[in-house]
Amino acid sequence: MDLHLPDALDILDRTPQTLRALLGGLTPEWTDAVEGPDTWSPFIIVGHLIHGERTDWIPRARIILEQGADRRFTPYDRFAQFRESAGKPLAGLLDEFAHLRAANLTILREWNLSDEQLALSGEHPEFGAVTLRQLLATWVAHDLSHLAQMTRVMAKQYRDAVGPWRAYLPIMDR
Amino acid sequence: MDLHLPDALDILDRTPQTLRALLGGLTPEWTDAVEGPDTWSPFIIVGHLIHGERTDWIPRARIILEQGADRRFTPYDRFAQFRESAGKPLAGLLDEFAHLRAANLTILREWNLSDEQLALSGEHPEFGAVTLRQLLATWVAHDLSHLAQMTRVMAKQYRDAVGPWRAYLPIMDR
Repeated sequence: MDLHLPDALDILDRTPQTLRALLGGLTPEWTDAVEGPDTWSPFIIVGHLIHGERTDWIPRARIILEQGADRRFTPYDRFAQFRESAGKPLAGLLDEFAHLRAANLTILREWNLSDEQLALSGEHPEFGAVTLRQLLATWVAHDLSHLAQMTRVMAKQYRDAVGPWRAYLPIMDR
Repeated sequence: MDLHLPDALDILDRTPQTLRALLGGLTPEWTDAVEGPDTWSPFIIVGHLIHGERTDWIPRARIILEQGADRRFTPYDRFAQFRESAGKPLAGLLDEFAHLRAANLTILREWNLSDEQLALSGEHPEFGAVTLRQLLATWVAHDLSHLAQMTRVMAKQYRDAVGPWRAYLPIMDR
């Protein structure tokens, strides 16, 4: 499936409400659950999504759209959320994410991007040239990928509790 | 994590709203998307969850609680939803699921299950003896597993669109 902007916005728009429905009001047994050492809980993942709203998607899109001499992106800090989320309640993080996402989508909509703009590129620190179209598709896929991760992490908490049904739940051993 | 009934209910209760947030109003490009031949779309998965509410979880729990002479479960029809969902709009399926789930959780809460009851067993057609505790943990894990599946299937629609970022998105090749 090619990136079609309205389809992409349809996902990006709903992630805050999906996160609220999935996690809002849950106990720490679920929201702080992990799937092994050095893996991320739903709480940590929400912080990671917040960091992306602040430093990654729209800032990178701006670098591409401006087409300045230096179009190299700042590397994504994959651990920022361990500092930035520390001690905050999840409800506040969910609100913060919703607020940042809404503001970013307002910017994206106001740009009213043309196909020519979507084909412009910036420089990823590892991959080299990447287009705005690829960046926006990755934003969408990144949301969905982390939703899949959260639900997998939560499911795994019952790996032993399900008994023999584990054989029917490949997610438990993924 | 052992099954603790309030934690389990906290997930079972919210799945209808999570599904609505994730899928309600989305275009068929997303809701009919699959990850390969003979795999399930989000639309098909919602039908599968509905079938479970009708025929599986509570009916099996009843068989266990009644402790009759024949405690063998009816096998789960994993393909019922291809017939039962055919031609129905997704919005109607989401409502139907929410309605069935709420009714089933009312029954579950009214049972006010004791630890002794949770330890009772029925006979799974393939696994043999399984406890009510294992059945209820599986109900929860089954919800979460299918949420992970839906979001994975949706993410994969952008497998090519993300370009080189595919290397950072292991979900694309899972």
